This record gives sequence, C-alpha cells and structure tokens, in this order.
Amino acid sequence: MEDNKTALSELGEFGFIDRLMKKIKISDKSVIKGIGDDAAVVDFGNKKTVISTDTLTEGVHFDVSYTPLKHLGYKAVVVNVSDIFAMNAKPKAITVSLSFSSRYPVEAIDELYEGILLAAKMYGVEVIGGDTTTSLSGLIINITAMGVANEEDIVYRNGAKENDLLVVTGDLGSAYVGLQLLEREKQVFKANDKIQPDLEGNDYVLERILKPEARADIIELLSKMEVKPTSMIDISDGLASEIFHICTQSEVGCSIYEDKLPIDPQTVLKAQDFEMNPTIVALNGGEDYELLFTIKQEDFEKVKGNPHMSIIGHMTDKNAGVNLVTRDNSSAPLTAQGWDAFLKREADDEGKEEE
Amino acid sequence: MEDNKTALSELGEFGFIDRLMKKIKISDKSVIKGIGDDAAVVDFGNKKTVISTDTLTEGVHFDVSYTPLKHLGYKAVVVNVSDIFAMNAKPKAITVSLSFSSRYPVEAIDELYEGILLAAKMYGVEVIGGDTTTSLSGLIINITAMGVANEEDIVYRNGAKENDLLVVTGDLGSAYVGLQLLEREKQVFKANDKIQPDLEGNDYVLERILKPEARADIIELLSKMEVKPTSMIDISDGLASEIFHICTQSEVGCSIYEDKLPIDPQTVLKAQDFEMNPTIVALNGGEDYELLFTIKQEDFEKVKGNPHMSIIGHMTDKNAGVNLVTRDNSSAPLTAQGWDAFLKREADDEGKEEE
Repeated sequence: MEDNKTALSELGEFGFIDRLMKKIKISDKSVIKGIGDDAAVVDFGNKKTVISTDTLTEGVHFDVSYTPLKHLGYKAVVVNVSDIFAMNAKPKAITVSLSFSSRYPVEAIDELYEGILLAAKMYGVEVIGGDTTTSLSGLIINITAMGVANEEDIVYRNGAKENDLLVVTGDLGSAYVGLQLLEREKQVFKANDKIQPDLEGNDYVLERILKPEARADIIELLSKMEVKPTSMIDISDGLASEIFHICTQSEVGCSIYEDKLPIDPQTVLKAQDFEMNPTIVALNGGEDYELLFTIKQEDFEKVKGNPHMSIIGHMTDKNAGVNLVTRDNSSAPLTAQGWDAFLKREADDEGKEEE
Repeated sequence: MEDNKTALSELGEFGFIDRLMKKIKISDKSVIKGIGDDAAVVDFGNKKTVISTDTLTEGVHFDVSYTPLKHLGYKAVVVNVSDIFAMNAKPKAITVSLSFSSRYPVEAIDELYEGILLAAKMYGVEVIGGDTTTSLSGLIINITAMGVANEEDIVYRNGAKENDLLVVTGDLGSAYVGLQLLEREKQVFKANDKIQPDLEGNDYVLERILKPEARADIIELLSKMEVKPTSMIDISDGLASEIFHICTQSEVGCSIYEDKLPIDPQTVLKAQDFEMNPTIVALNGGEDYELLFTIKQEDFEKVKGNPHMSIIGHMTDKNAGVNLVTRDNSSAPLTAQGWDAFLKREADDEGKEEE
C-alpha cells in the first residue's frame, strides 16, 4: 500500500462503515431510518413504490484504467435512477452494495462514494443502506433504487398500441463511440506508454460514456406537457434491443426510420473514424440512458418540434414485425442485437472482435 | 463445457432472463409488477417499508467446494430476511442480483435459484426483480429485501435502556464449528482425494452453516407474547460484535453471563475437538442468524423458561462498559472481535491463522 493510502484492514469493517456513515446525511423526511440498523425504514405514503436494481462489474461493465472512480460512482447511481424514470416515477432512495478486492485502498472507495453521493444529490435520492464486502478480484457495485409514483402515472413496457408514435429523447450512439475511443487510446498506451492519450475535442462522446445523466428532465417535461406515454423503457442495451422489449411485451410491431434517428454530429464523425456505420452505432450502441417511449397519435402536436424528443417511427400490427425503413426508402427487418453482456464476454474470451 | 451443461452464451442474456421469469410466479397482491420491466412496482399500503441488502461473495463468504448451490441460494435469502425480522418487520419481497463467471453453466445458476425460490416460498417473500451479469471470477449474490411493519412495531438497535434484560434466541457458535469442520475436511481431501469427507454425526452444526434459518417464528412469538423488544439485532457477525452495536447505539453498557450462553452439546463437543473454547466460539463465531434483543424487566415473566429464548445478561450504565461474567464469577471487559471480513482476508493473505 502506498504511503498516503489506507488499507481497509487498518480501519476494519466497522471502522469503514462508521467513516462512511458520517458522509451520508439524510434530509428527506420519508426516510425514517437510513444506514446503521439491520434495515432502513421508509414511508412513501400512499404512493406506489417502484424498485430497480443494477450491477456494474469491473472488467465487464467498466475498465478502471480509463474510468475515474468518481465518475463510476456517479454512473452507478444514474443507471439505477434511469430505470425508475423509465417507469415515469420519481427516485427517492438507494442502497449501495460494494465488493472490492484489497487492491482498492480506502481512498479509492472514498472517491467512488464521492461520485455516488454527488449523483444522489443531483437526483434527489437518499442513500439509505448497503453493505461493503471484499471480493477476490475487482470491484462490483450493486445499487437498488426505490422510487414513488401514483398508480395512474406509472408507465410499463407493455402498453404500446398499433399506430402509437415511437419517441426517443436526446441522441443515440455517442456513449458507444466514446467507449471505442477510450479502448483505442488504451491499446495505444499499452503499446507505448510514452504516448499520451489523444482525447481532445471528444468531450461530448467521452462524457456520454463516463458520466451519463438520467433523464429526470423528461419526466418533468412529460408531466408539464400532459403527455402520458403508453409505454416506456430506458436505453441501456441499445435502441434496437429496447424496441424489441416494447414490441414483445406490448404485442405490436414497429417501423422506424433511419433518417429520423437522432445522432450527434460528433458521434457521426467519430463513428466514421472507426469505420463504423453511424446508424448501426445508434441502433446497437447501448449505454445511452435516454428514454424510449410510445405516445398516442393525438399527442403528436405536443411532442412535435420539442428539441429533447425525436419521433422515430410508429407501432404497427404485431405480424408486420420490427422494421427499419432506410434512407433509400427500403424496409428491412431489424434484429435486436442489443449489447449482450454474455455474448460480448464469450466473443472477447475467444479473442474475436465484437461488431 | 460438459455435454449436458449449457453455457450462458448459448442462451444469451435475454434468453436467460426469459427462462428465469418462467420460474418466478408472483402470488402476493401487494406486488403490482414483478420482474420484466425497468423496475418492480409494489404497494405496501399504509405500513412502513423496511429495506435491507446483503452480499455473499465466493471465496469470502462461501466456498463452493463444500457449499451446495441450492443451499447457498437458500442462505442468501435467509441472511436478508433475517435483517428484516431483526426490525420486527415482515419480509415481503426481494430483488436478486447475480454476478458469475463463465465457469458457471446455466444449470448451476438454476440450482442456485432453486434454493432462492425455496427460501422465498418458506419465508413468504416474492422475487420482484434483479439483474444477472458476468463477473471476471467467482460468484457474487446480492439480495435486497423489503418488508413491512406498522411504525409502532418497528424495533431499532438504539432503544435499549439500563436494567433491560438481554435475550438471545436459539443457540450460538454452531455455524462456526460447522464451518471449521468443512474447512478441515476440505484440507484432508486436498491432501488426499481418496479420503472421503468424514462428516457423519455432525448434521446439526453443518446445517447451521450450510442451510441456516431466519427466526420468523420469534417475531410471531413475540407478538403473541405481547413483548415488544426495546432493541433488536440479528447475529451475523457474532454475539459480542452485535452486543457492541446495541450498546453503542443505545448508549448503555452490558453484563453478560458465561454460564447463560446457550450452546448446543454438539457444538461444545466439536469445539473441544478443534481445541477451541466453546464460550469464545459462542461469542465470536458469527453466522448464527439468531435474534438478540433487549426487553424491559417487567417482561421477564413472559420470556422466562421459553425454550427458544435465553436471558443472557442485562444492560448497565454506559460507563460500566461491556463485560463478561465468567463461570468463576469474575468480570472482564468483552471485546467486539466480530467476524471482520477485512481483517480475516488480510490475515489469510499473510498466511496467518485467524483466531
């Protein structure tokens, strides 16, 4: 352990937890008891509680060689609250479980927690519990998020109807391009550690992968616009994959239009640098944490022209399947490649390149 | 992968989740939406929600070479619902997050889930969500449990008062002795794999480590007896450690009596086999998942003689500290050794023996 670093064994488990508890202040009155007992106690009143859990694993979901720990902590919260927003609910509390090997000194975990607490503050959620254990290798972050909503406001994946319009927020594929960039510079650095990473001018795509934001603003906006989506999901695995989830659960088909896909110019340029088709990147990239939802035709006027939302297609009969209408106006079935963690691992294991 | 085993990559992430969802049936009406959307939706009515999370990590909390996966799944649920019981609440729902390396075929995870679902059924909790990710090495199980209670029934760690009686359920130290036995037989087997493990006649201590139960019965019993503990905690780290938690949070001291500690005869015999002091084993063993609570003096008659409960001491002034009155009637300060996962790891890393 370096001189200015503290091994966890110096503090002990309880010492570490005490230290952590001092950093976590609860201000939300719905939290009756936070960290420090066998369980937390919350009172969300008469609203329904919405619960989601997500794990980020070193070597699978992130690479600490280019992911600052503070950003990682921030992102771990974002990934979870994004699921709560995707139910049209408001996140209220999270539990945080960390497993880490002795390679991580206390200061590293502090940095991680700094990001967690910053995101918690940003999204108005309280850290109400968690546990901290050692792992044999690497760092694993599991967060469970709880939110609230009135029953009539909750939006599921299964409510899309034929002729509904398909809407996506923000832009697509930028996180994936950012990841490619980080991976490339890592390889360059591994080959020659005298060469400094060349990341200049790529702020946007890098921020999208390293410090994404969940779309709290969209949930507020929809409420103000008086639009209740008929179905909604967040884009973690990739647009195509999420469209398939909505179509399968809602028992509808879908046509989306290549020329309607929102892609940031920086993403287009970078994708071309990597000799990737920007449309494929937008469809399959993943980790965008944008919201994908369907609305009734009658809400078209409310959504049209909104700078945060793009209408990218419409829902069809189930038997028509899921189709992409390309720029040359031909229609082809879409495949839900998604961002399958298992397939990716397997491909990596075999030394193959993933598409 | 063996012939009759299925690699996860064959099913893919979504295929695996679909397969899992078919096994999970929700019957509790308070679960409005279980697995299959961005988040689960629950309605616990006007009661308070109690939330706890716990992680079991391969190589730290369990060793798959002698832990059947079905038992492991069962135990992962028990560990979590035990925390809910320790709040005097009723567990209702769990989320399950699994991280596992490609070493685990689908059938192994099925076995793990069999145990999870069996325990869920036993304790009346619904599996409402979770996620499944790959890990670089080993298996990590994180469960978040949610329960309900009327606000006036919830018991915290911080309510013990001077002169309250300290009560523990069941018996202590058996899980630790069971673990020592498994470790010993593992070493024998490693040295010579022709020698079959000698575990006969040790059913009780083995069951205590491999398939513990949480004390749902005690929560019901306390309610029937009309006894509301003034403080309560479950024994995961060891009796001594948990006593310190209650004393610290309640700002009291405590005297416990060596001759009152409930230790099963099999545990005493086995501890002696290992040349361990049974009292030390009972104080510091850990993983008992019994309940430790304080009651008012006036409830003495109700608890006295109950076969599930032992009165082991009483609370004192904070300044008196935490003391053990030994069989020879001398009093000595107790130390909260606990079962510090970090210290244990460090000691193991340095090849030292843990006490």
